[in-house]
Amino acid sequence: MSLIEKLNWRYATKKFDATKKLSKEQLDTLLHAIRLAPSSYGLQSYKVLVVENPEIREQLKAAAYGQPQLTDASQVIVFATETNIDEASVHKYVDNIVATRNIDRSMVEGYEQTMVGTVNRLPDEQKIGWSTKQTYIALGVLLTAAAEIGVDACPMEGFEAGKFDEILGLKEKGLAATVIATIGFRAHDDHYSHLAKVRKPAEELFIHI
Amino acid sequence: MSLIEKLNWRYATKKFDATKKLSKEQLDTLLHAIRLAPSSYGLQSYKVLVVENPEIREQLKAAAYGQPQLTDASQVIVFATETNIDEASVHKYVDNIVATRNIDRSMVEGYEQTMVGTVNRLPDEQKIGWSTKQTYIALGVLLTAAAEIGVDACPMEGFEAGKFDEILGLKEKGLAATVIATIGFRAHDDHYSHLAKVRKPAEELFIHI
Repeated sequence: MSLIEKLNWRYATKKFDATKKLSKEQLDTLLHAIRLAPSSYGLQSYKVLVVENPEIREQLKAAAYGQPQLTDASQVIVFATETNIDEASVHKYVDNIVATRNIDRSMVEGYEQTMVGTVNRLPDEQKIGWSTKQTYIALGVLLTAAAEIGVDACPMEGFEAGKFDEILGLKEKGLAATVIATIGFRAHDDHYSHLAKVRKPAEELFIHI
Repeated sequence: MSLIEKLNWRYATKKFDATKKLSKEQLDTLLHAIRLAPSSYGLQSYKVLVVENPEIREQLKAAAYGQPQLTDASQVIVFATETNIDEASVHKYVDNIVATRNIDRSMVEGYEQTMVGTVNRLPDEQKIGWSTKQTYIALGVLLTAAAEIGVDACPMEGFEAGKFDEILGLKEKGLAATVIATIGFRAHDDHYSHLAKVRKPAEELFIHI
């Protein structure tokens, strides 16, 4: 299948086959893709939870209006923004750049100052909003990668974020859940898998200038 | 190349080869991928500008701190959220569902009411924030698709959104620029293309539960 055929094949899976689990290789590929997702400045000011524990997933389901994907999918992926992005976050990231590229810190001093300026300038709410948007890039990468390797997924905003934070102990880790995706394999009788995909016509979506 | 190799191959291209343009097929594939990107409720409450006009691109460059990607890339893709998401937006979307799936409107009445409830409940600022996040999913899909077909891209938040809105006449269309991506082909001498990719180690990025 071409990329476009694969993107047409994917859909927001409503009913997963609870007996089918991702292989270690499939899960590794998707997590690797998430890890390679770009983010503003490259800061990756978020963490990604991979939830398999059945009891925790029952609790998450209750905090997601009982949606069965939470327990029937192979894994629940929870994107969580850091809520305390500060100079220390920047310094840690620059440490990583210096080590990965084996360069002198002076070479990225200007870049570091730019980033420090940004995180010091923005009020907390704006920083969290900014970082939240980055988690949506990672979500887009995950969904495309899943389609690419034939894994089903359901992106979900319909959950009580505060309850997720509580169940997953995110607040004390300086994190807040932003968006989730359940991944696994569609049930053969998922009614939604047979529906035609609805998208704006190209003439309406795109403006050529 | 595997998907992971392709995602490692991609990077935020700083210097494009201004002589190289996407083929019609490559551009069509990327726009098609954007069109297939998922969004909350499937509403796609945004538009996507594909900017090729050289004079307009000079103006956009000036409004993006002079970054050369704006004029040297093959195309500038501007994601723009709708600023007036309302009941009419929902009804139009439901019209599309009914026509695409050839179903009776009564079958999606409940869904329509849910969406109307959401757009009526949220204050404008929250609606725009919500819709802005959806454009970042589309951005993630675009970046992954570009890597998949060997096209370079640079996601960019560093631009003056208000000026972009003015240059592109977005305000009068009920739109506001949220994020952009330049697409094309890397110049052989783009220093950044040879740098090792810096990402958080998996142990730091992921929390397994």
